[in-house]
Amino acid sequence: MPHITLPTDEPGIVGLFGYRPETAGPLNALAEVLLRADSTLTRGERELIATYVSSLNQCRFCASSHAAFAAAQLPEGMDLVERVRADLDTAPVTPKIRALLRIAASVQRGGREVTEEQVAAARAEGATDLEIHDTVLIAAAFCMFNRYVDGLGTFAPEDPAAYAAMAEKIVAVGYTEGAAEPGH
Amino acid sequence: MPHITLPTDEPGIVGLFGYRPETAGPLNALAEVLLRADSTLTRGERELIATYVSSLNQCRFCASSHAAFAAAQLPEGMDLVERVRADLDTAPVTPKIRALLRIAASVQRGGREVTEEQVAAARAEGATDLEIHDTVLIAAAFCMFNRYVDGLGTFAPEDPAAYAAMAEKIVAVGYTEGAAEPGH
Repeated sequence: MPHITLPTDEPGIVGLFGYRPETAGPLNALAEVLLRADSTLTRGERELIATYVSSLNQCRFCASSHAAFAAAQLPEGMDLVERVRADLDTAPVTPKIRALLRIAASVQRGGREVTEEQVAAARAEGATDLEIHDTVLIAAAFCMFNRYVDGLGTFAPEDPAAYAAMAEKIVAVGYTEGAAEPGH
Repeated sequence: MPHITLPTDEPGIVGLFGYRPETAGPLNALAEVLLRADSTLTRGERELIATYVSSLNQCRFCASSHAAFAAAQLPEGMDLVERVRADLDTAPVTPKIRALLRIAASVQRGGREVTEEQVAAARAEGATDLEIHDTVLIAAAFCMFNRYVDGLGTFAPEDPAAYAAMAEKIVAVGYTEGAAEPGH
């Protein structure tokens, strides 16, 4: 049971967006810029960062939904997502993505956990300043989204089909199209 | 030294906003809705929640700046802010604000730390669903802002005058007016 009365029984953050469109607007705009706008990181790679942080925060709704969004946009699909979640050290990602995911894991524990050495390691694998910036902000943003979703006790479906349906919509139209926003 | 090269030597999140206006837009819009838009919680009370969470996350830039913003907008000023940061149990806040700050402290540790009992206690002191929602989202958002600011190794001034100057601007015009945004 959610801690507050929501207008619909939509799961996770979806019900919260319907409850408070004034905050849904900026939250969806942030997700759109970070996860879908033009970037030298692919959409699948950025969703993988979101999934990894959500898994570390043990947020079932966010981890399951972004795993589906990542799988739908990575050539290697759900197998790669599962291997990253199971063991980052042995997962078959590029050295740059592994270094960025290590930075994301530090951010999940706390901002001051990110070390000069981790940043230097990412840069040595070809990561740009913008990629490092966006990795830190994606990881930080999911520390927000995860706490928002679980802090209000929202419902997370168990059926993978629910997340696959969300993935279809996000991959097709993104986070802001048709999202609850003031004036929409 | 910040982990990436920023366009100016402006401290904390200010330099990051200048570096990436595409994300500064939604981030400032979120802060404006949560901390300044119409609400049954005063601006001072909402800045107090932001300050308390930033203190728990040991983010010097955010804790110092939002402490200044709270102090400037609370009748009791910085004395109350310092007492909340020192010991929430004995600080002279209303029972409702104390209950909401306890929820915020749980969110800081993790979304699943918020208990039914904490929510019921806040409601018993008169907190509405919207106040509980916004408390959770303010706390979650500062878990993001704190990680963003510290995860990129930004600079935090030691001089309280630097934060007082920021407070003057925020109190007067808010988070979005004059902020770096695409197209501005």
